[in-house]
Amino acid sequence: MKKLHIIWAHPRIDSLTAQMVKVITEQAIEQGFTTSELDLYRANFNPVLPIEDEPDWSNPNKVYSTEVMQLADQITDKDIIVFVFPVWWYSFPAILKGYLDRVWNFGLAYGAEHKFSIQTIRWIALVGDVKHAFEKRGNDQHIVHLLDKSISSYGGVTDSKVEFLYDTLGSEVTDSGREQHYQRLFEQAKNVIKQLVA
Amino acid sequence: MKKLHIIWAHPRIDSLTAQMVKVITEQAIEQGFTTSELDLYRANFNPVLPIEDEPDWSNPNKVYSTEVMQLADQITDKDIIVFVFPVWWYSFPAILKGYLDRVWNFGLAYGAEHKFSIQTIRWIALVGDVKHAFEKRGNDQHIVHLLDKSISSYGGVTDSKVEFLYDTLGSEVTDSGREQHYQRLFEQAKNVIKQLVA
Repeated sequence: MKKLHIIWAHPRIDSLTAQMVKVITEQAIEQGFTTSELDLYRANFNPVLPIEDEPDWSNPNKVYSTEVMQLADQITDKDIIVFVFPVWWYSFPAILKGYLDRVWNFGLAYGAEHKFSIQTIRWIALVGDVKHAFEKRGNDQHIVHLLDKSISSYGGVTDSKVEFLYDTLGSEVTDSGREQHYQRLFEQAKNVIKQLVA
Repeated sequence: MKKLHIIWAHPRIDSLTAQMVKVITEQAIEQGFTTSELDLYRANFNPVLPIEDEPDWSNPNKVYSTEVMQLADQITDKDIIVFVFPVWWYSFPAILKGYLDRVWNFGLAYGAEHKFSIQTIRWIALVGDVKHAFEKRGNDQHIVHLLDKSISSYGGVTDSKVEFLYDTLGSEVTDSGREQHYQRLFEQAKNVIKQLVA
């Protein structure tokens, strides 16, 4: 029974992001995954890396701050991580960036003796903009490179994929097509989970 | 007399990043710029975007939180912004990402009626890694795309450049070449300012 951990970031508990997390969790349970969740906002996670969380390149067993060590413990036995977040300034919200800065630290997420044994990462990125406008400038490609080729790969995770959920503001849908549009986005997120093997 | 504002991020006040800020400030003053600075860590900036700082797409004159409005006021009359930061996970430290998320908001930094009138942005990115390893995977190109083509350009700033200062850990220098190596990095940062017209 694989362990699937969802890490997500949004200030509102009634946001589309939060609703996606609910749909994803239900789908994962249906497929037999053991699920758990880190809601960064409600956990009051502090993304500002303090001096005590700076890596010590000579010590892969460094004990970081209590908050970091607790959150690291939370994922050492996890097989799959699913990140769910809105794209702000073509990247993560700061609270999620800081989670990587602090918790995905040297000796924990990367380095010869790293502790995590994650095999699979899925990045579910909610984009306010419409698909063609976002792709026109190549923003999708650059985000895929950053997430898959740089971040996941540096952590030794080769099975990594980004799924973009576009037009979350619904600017290209009519009032009558509104519900259908969001239903399609939920289906898209569910399909990401359906393709994972429990 | 152009106004040059430095925004920087590092937990340590004795860091190489902090030393770069000092060198850059001195050079800017020598060239006749009016300088100012935002030290995000010492300002205790909170990078976590709260609900009250979510953009309201129907209102470009939205009054955001007090912290955001104060920091926005700080840069409305600035001509040049110089960001100085270490590259963590191929991107900004979370505290700087959150500065963009919150302060470079709709109606302030972007949108038809935005308030900032920045003409020039320089991104001074300190990279722990050595140049060839960093460039091998195209990380430099993706960062340039994100900063210049996506972020600056979305804020209407066309004169934007990224300067990478490589091998800040000094892993490719001998003990005797150490001081020279850092001296070269300081010169590189100074040159970025020398090329700006006051």
